[in-house]
Amino acid sequence: MSRTSSTYPRKVNIFEVGPRDGLQNEATLLSVEDKVTFIQELILAGLKNIEVGSFVSPKWVPQMANSVAVCQALPKTTDVTFSGLTPNLRGLEEALAAGVDEIAIFGAASERFSQTNINCSVAESLLRFQPVVALAQQHNIPVRGYVSTVLGCPYQGDVPIKDVLNVVKALHDMGCYQISLGDTIGVGTPLATQKLLDKILELVPIENVAVHFHNTYGQALANILIALQMGITTIDTATAGLGGCPYAKGASGNIATEDVVYMCHGMGIDTGIDLAKLVTAGKNISQKLQKQPHSLVSLAL
Amino acid sequence: MSRTSSTYPRKVNIFEVGPRDGLQNEATLLSVEDKVTFIQELILAGLKNIEVGSFVSPKWVPQMANSVAVCQALPKTTDVTFSGLTPNLRGLEEALAAGVDEIAIFGAASERFSQTNINCSVAESLLRFQPVVALAQQHNIPVRGYVSTVLGCPYQGDVPIKDVLNVVKALHDMGCYQISLGDTIGVGTPLATQKLLDKILELVPIENVAVHFHNTYGQALANILIALQMGITTIDTATAGLGGCPYAKGASGNIATEDVVYMCHGMGIDTGIDLAKLVTAGKNISQKLQKQPHSLVSLAL
Repeated sequence: MSRTSSTYPRKVNIFEVGPRDGLQNEATLLSVEDKVTFIQELILAGLKNIEVGSFVSPKWVPQMANSVAVCQALPKTTDVTFSGLTPNLRGLEEALAAGVDEIAIFGAASERFSQTNINCSVAESLLRFQPVVALAQQHNIPVRGYVSTVLGCPYQGDVPIKDVLNVVKALHDMGCYQISLGDTIGVGTPLATQKLLDKILELVPIENVAVHFHNTYGQALANILIALQMGITTIDTATAGLGGCPYAKGASGNIATEDVVYMCHGMGIDTGIDLAKLVTAGKNISQKLQKQPHSLVSLAL
Repeated sequence: MSRTSSTYPRKVNIFEVGPRDGLQNEATLLSVEDKVTFIQELILAGLKNIEVGSFVSPKWVPQMANSVAVCQALPKTTDVTFSGLTPNLRGLEEALAAGVDEIAIFGAASERFSQTNINCSVAESLLRFQPVVALAQQHNIPVRGYVSTVLGCPYQGDVPIKDVLNVVKALHDMGCYQISLGDTIGVGTPLATQKLLDKILELVPIENVAVHFHNTYGQALANILIALQMGITTIDTATAGLGGCPYAKGASGNIATEDVVYMCHGMGIDTGIDLAKLVTAGKNISQKLQKQPHSLVSLAL
């Protein structure tokens, strides 16, 4: 008889954000060819959801300046969904022209994070998303909604759960098919994750919720375990743990896809991913960035 | 209403193994003075159980050759327990003369690990421990029992749970006040941890069980979370994640004390440890080893 009552999903969906959220925090600029090679290796490893770029001003995110060219050079495949981040209508139009399969919008739960990073209130940012979502829907393009700073903010510290819930509900009501809850600075711990998810799941169906943990304080895998125990089945990860943390120099970025896949497979949870091929993809992109993979599985294998 | 039924201990005991299990896998030999400074900083940070050395042949573990001198130079304090690893009677006699407060013996669950590392069967190794435990008990010295390779072996791969149970029971029956379950090569994942602990706790009272996870594959904190959910309250850790893995070059060693303490404090679990002072201790010892701390918390702070 087990002393814990946890059950786990039989299958999870890994949402790979390495080519976007990961690379955008890497200083070494990569060519279109390098990015496409990376994405092709991720496809070979079995990833089915890949965020491939961001349609923002190259002035703000130089690494993403070639996102249109990357999208246009991607293999035409029907069983992989390529996603692009589009903060506004201009970005969406670029993304549509580049042929992305879905788009993502990015809201913050923290008022000060929103004010500091995009110079507007959370409420104003949500208003700006409405025409983006409406136009995407006209084109039958699914929209994913990110909510950042759900477990802490680099500027204001604690973020009240009600502020997270407000943004989650707004994005869900707006028509986002999935809400990805981001611990942007990786400060969250398992009990906070559990308490937050308890509240979120009263508001939004579980199949519409994803988790996105950064591993800045080493907590991501423990937090993901909690999410799995609660029945969440979509996990955002970045191969090789790409990306640092702009708020903590030298710190880790996204949790490594390799480490999450290792845990899932060890628990009999299907991911559809070939770990050896994934490790190779992570080592190759890390080599191009002239750094070691931020994946302990990769270092151990 | 929570969707998970987990409760967590209000207080955990961190058993610091950095000066022994950590350092013994570090190539840079440290002086008595360096080690004593490190241990004093750990005491200042609030650690109450510290494994300070190993009483083995210096031929096998050169880093531990100065363990007697380290023990003799430690501050005389009654509220910190200094522990030493003693594989045999000669080691125990040295440890007693050096003035340790408790000793530890080290058995393997894996038959091939035992044969390869100490040239005897598991059963023979257990027989050898009996006079060690008996003499320690004559001196009123508590004995801690390690069981290594509980979730996998570098030589034989899988280790049957019944083999783990056999060794756990033998050490418990022999009089070890606590059994520390070691995932020596860090291959275990949360569900395997849960299944193992389920069985162990049918055999041994929970207060006599500790967990000892290496972070080779990044799984340690998730596994520790499971242990906490099951009510385990003693966790072995090494400040700065000292020690590599002799079976995987470049891989991580023990889970960092800092990362466990961060998680516990974030969950409202008392450890009695001052995280800032602990991070300083970890940074100082890492500097002496001319490496970066293997603690993400340390890198982020």
